[in-house]
Amino acid sequence: MNLLSRILPVWLVQYRRVNLWPDLIAGIIFTVLVIPQSLAYALLAGLPPQVGLYISIFPVIAYAIWGSSTVQAVGPVAITAIMTFAVLSPLAAPGSPEYLTLAASLSLISGALLLLMGFLHFGFLAQLLSRPVISGFISGSSILIVLSQIKYLLGMTPPGEDTWTQLNSIFQQLSHVHSATLMISMPALLVLIYARYGLTRLLRCLGFTSSHAAFIVRIIPLLVVLAGTLGVVCLDLDHLYGVAVIGKVIEGLPGFKFFLPDYRSIQTLAIPALLMALIGMVQGISMAQSLAIKRQERIDANAELVGLGASNLVAAFYGGMPVGGGVSRSAVNVAAGAQTQLAGVVSAIVMIGVVAGAAHEFARLPLAVLAANIIVAAVGMVDIKAFRNAWHYDRADGLALLGTTGGVILLGLEGGIMLGIGLSLATLLFRASKPHVAVIGRLPGTEHFRNVERYEVQTIPQVLFLRIDENLFFGNLNAIETRLTQELIKNTGIQEVVLVMSAVNQVDTTAMEVLSELNRDLMQRAIRLHLAEIKGPLHDRLRHSPLLRVLSGSIYLSANEAFESFSTVNNISTAKL
Amino acid sequence: MNLLSRILPVWLVQYRRVNLWPDLIAGIIFTVLVIPQSLAYALLAGLPPQVGLYISIFPVIAYAIWGSSTVQAVGPVAITAIMTFAVLSPLAAPGSPEYLTLAASLSLISGALLLLMGFLHFGFLAQLLSRPVISGFISGSSILIVLSQIKYLLGMTPPGEDTWTQLNSIFQQLSHVHSATLMISMPALLVLIYARYGLTRLLRCLGFTSSHAAFIVRIIPLLVVLAGTLGVVCLDLDHLYGVAVIGKVIEGLPGFKFFLPDYRSIQTLAIPALLMALIGMVQGISMAQSLAIKRQERIDANAELVGLGASNLVAAFYGGMPVGGGVSRSAVNVAAGAQTQLAGVVSAIVMIGVVAGAAHEFARLPLAVLAANIIVAAVGMVDIKAFRNAWHYDRADGLALLGTTGGVILLGLEGGIMLGIGLSLATLLFRASKPHVAVIGRLPGTEHFRNVERYEVQTIPQVLFLRIDENLFFGNLNAIETRLTQELIKNTGIQEVVLVMSAVNQVDTTAMEVLSELNRDLMQRAIRLHLAEIKGPLHDRLRHSPLLRVLSGSIYLSANEAFESFSTVNNISTAKL
Repeated sequence: MNLLSRILPVWLVQYRRVNLWPDLIAGIIFTVLVIPQSLAYALLAGLPPQVGLYISIFPVIAYAIWGSSTVQAVGPVAITAIMTFAVLSPLAAPGSPEYLTLAASLSLISGALLLLMGFLHFGFLAQLLSRPVISGFISGSSILIVLSQIKYLLGMTPPGEDTWTQLNSIFQQLSHVHSATLMISMPALLVLIYARYGLTRLLRCLGFTSSHAAFIVRIIPLLVVLAGTLGVVCLDLDHLYGVAVIGKVIEGLPGFKFFLPDYRSIQTLAIPALLMALIGMVQGISMAQSLAIKRQERIDANAELVGLGASNLVAAFYGGMPVGGGVSRSAVNVAAGAQTQLAGVVSAIVMIGVVAGAAHEFARLPLAVLAANIIVAAVGMVDIKAFRNAWHYDRADGLALLGTTGGVILLGLEGGIMLGIGLSLATLLFRASKPHVAVIGRLPGTEHFRNVERYEVQTIPQVLFLRIDENLFFGNLNAIETRLTQELIKNTGIQEVVLVMSAVNQVDTTAMEVLSELNRDLMQRAIRLHLAEIKGPLHDRLRHSPLLRVLSGSIYLSANEAFESFSTVNNISTAKL
Repeated sequence: MNLLSRILPVWLVQYRRVNLWPDLIAGIIFTVLVIPQSLAYALLAGLPPQVGLYISIFPVIAYAIWGSSTVQAVGPVAITAIMTFAVLSPLAAPGSPEYLTLAASLSLISGALLLLMGFLHFGFLAQLLSRPVISGFISGSSILIVLSQIKYLLGMTPPGEDTWTQLNSIFQQLSHVHSATLMISMPALLVLIYARYGLTRLLRCLGFTSSHAAFIVRIIPLLVVLAGTLGVVCLDLDHLYGVAVIGKVIEGLPGFKFFLPDYRSIQTLAIPALLMALIGMVQGISMAQSLAIKRQERIDANAELVGLGASNLVAAFYGGMPVGGGVSRSAVNVAAGAQTQLAGVVSAIVMIGVVAGAAHEFARLPLAVLAANIIVAAVGMVDIKAFRNAWHYDRADGLALLGTTGGVILLGLEGGIMLGIGLSLATLLFRASKPHVAVIGRLPGTEHFRNVERYEVQTIPQVLFLRIDENLFFGNLNAIETRLTQELIKNTGIQEVVLVMSAVNQVDTTAMEVLSELNRDLMQRAIRLHLAEIKGPLHDRLRHSPLLRVLSGSIYLSANEAFESFSTVNNISTAKL
């Protein structure tokens, strides 16, 4: 038992019987519901449809063993699929043997990187991407996904690999729209849109509980797919009218194909794989975290990395397409009632059955219906509310979000995310270079100091208390010197300047030197410079610096201590606003 | 008079007679002293020697009119010269007509950029470069200068344009050293080194005042040059032994050559010119500032930009080589006793005389002696003390300095400075991502709060006061959450968490959302989250954010207000260190 409990994952050892039935049911329902999107995302990635089913088996089990989230569902997801296509389509023809090998290599390399990051406890790297940048990236990719699916809705096969070239030729030949396809895709699209945005309200009016209503809404896409397929089969739409269908879905279990990518693929794919790992990490961890919060559980970012990494490694050998933690997959899993990772294992086993015996049923599934499904899912991922919130709270973050979205659409996924990271770093620096500096005084009857422009406070006319609300670094010293000079010009009687450092956490070498020069400069004008409320770690650092050796004034523990010492020799006046 | 005072520069209108005599003498002495380095820096830039004299005339007058420093001397300087050579030598053969045109274009473009930055009040851009990066850049360039001069010392003409290629072939053919040249260069080098590092002490022992001693030290390079030239002339070393000399120095005033660079040159030179303008700006402004501090004057960064820009524009048309504010030139000017900009004007007039009638005397000046001069000056610019100070005060700044120096030497001037900027930005971000977070308590008898690990303070066991010493942004939220979790695990009885925001100046969108989630998370554990000492500008921003709408606790003006409100219902305990 002791040995078993060491080998088996914790959740299995501690498994509670009460969860068994819900997990079994959820595993079965989940599998049925995600089959269409699994096929669709494989096609989106430029791979044969059955690959989407393959990677819903062993990678899911791998995640159940090593991952840390109880209900996150990994598998083929939209972002990963479109990234795969974006990276590989310039390198090989989609669907060709080289393309398949490259896709498996991409999965392998990004899996290895995720594992490595997990083992090295690099989970903190996810911090490199701010939420506006992530949100902008997801919105931009979703718009790209929508654009890439338009051709299937219209039943057209425009030339060129690149989405923009294809869109261009679609618009030039709009009269060539395939009307039989349109007859399928438009109703499917309308039903799906209604199901997503209007059906819940109707169902609630009809007296369904909200969880039942949510479940029905989630079933609709499957029903639309079944209706579409039935339509094709009954009316023979594919043979008679040339409606595009998935075509052959190869049945049978995927074989285990061990391989190591060659040096050239590693070189070509390293950067995209790293980016994919990074995005996968951020999406996976934030997804797992938000699910965990709802369930009052905790996830471990590094365990999550190991789970995602193992899952991608297994995906490379058993199917050959990168996997991720999916927003819609996980939502389906939760809605189906999953309680633990066992639901995932059940779903993997059910999927083996589908792959072995029922996959051919999907051969005549019309692509237009799948495209309608993908488009509605992708539109749902465009997060306008996040943009509105960011814009409202902080223009610069809003711009970073918009820049990332625009960058993804116009420059591609990598260009877009680089632009986003660049914008968010530039914002940080720009902010820090325009520090808030306040002249402060004491709130009467307290030891608390506040901005003279906001509060009625006590001041000493000969003493200038200046609170600097930013770390001092090479980029903002001019602004601070300028402000000090302005104050000295306004109040010519000042004899003492007290810099209140309560908000200063760092003073870099440049700043330390500039402060020393400022001290000398003030001394020549018979003004002493004092420092107050220096933080412990900063004081440790400054202790042996030239600045404290030459300082003309004193160092006070608190602004109040300085105020008290000056108020004995000077008059206090109360500033009026 | 009114009209005149509007046209003439302020210093001339307010000119005091007492300065006239010192300025006249200083102007004459200065001119004689800087002739050798002016010739040398023109050669260093890959231009004919007389160009160094030309740009010591009208650009100096332009700076006297528009510049803001009283004693800064502009003209040919080492950094600008080596940057010119580095930029142009891959584009054209040094000394060729295209090269001369490109050098003039470079001067024109960087002058125009400086003027533009001055008019647009872009002086703050100088902040982009931290002092360690500037210092590292100057040290690196100086080392490059030293390396580039070794061939002249040894009297060798190695093949290749690039310094490293030349050094390589020098080392492979060390036996081909030109011994006659060595007989001149080694004594010159030794005398110059002694003059710089040992002579002052000797002179002081002999009873000279320190200003006299400094003056004598500054004259030595000129004497060495004269001795070297006399040696060549008397012993006919150039013709008999093939010692390399300057060669023909064209006499006569430079003509005014107006031109506009063509589109292609603008395209090629725009980035180097911008970099040059930036470095010129930083060096010029910091030089002017340090001189102004010593003389208790103020300089205006933007006027300084206009002065440097005008000076470079004039240099483009009258000579054709970029100019800058020189460290050693300015030191010579001050040592010679200059009081106002008039000294510069006098020096320009004297230089006209030299160019018109005496320039040919320098034709037989041995290059080896000039190289020895340049090397000693360049070695003096390698600032080891700056590195030691930065390293001692702040490892990261020390590394940025070292990285910039190494980058300049190995990757070239542009690569080096980019590396330096990258390193200093990375340092900033890395620091901000590891914030200092302190559990704080009240100093007994005060309203002042301090770290419980550093002071004996009062605490309330049920209330955790956490002071975050950094702006909250996407890069450091994990660290803060981790710390909070640790504290909650350590003290299981905590019911209230007060985040003291006195040191938080910015809360970006990601941080605002994470705080909202943290609030919800804590609420589920029956812990309330409070905020205290939110800064005015931050409070304005947060006021309408989702965070304040959902906050489970209160917002306190000060930590003490929070402490008072909790201490009425809880016991206060005094923490022992």
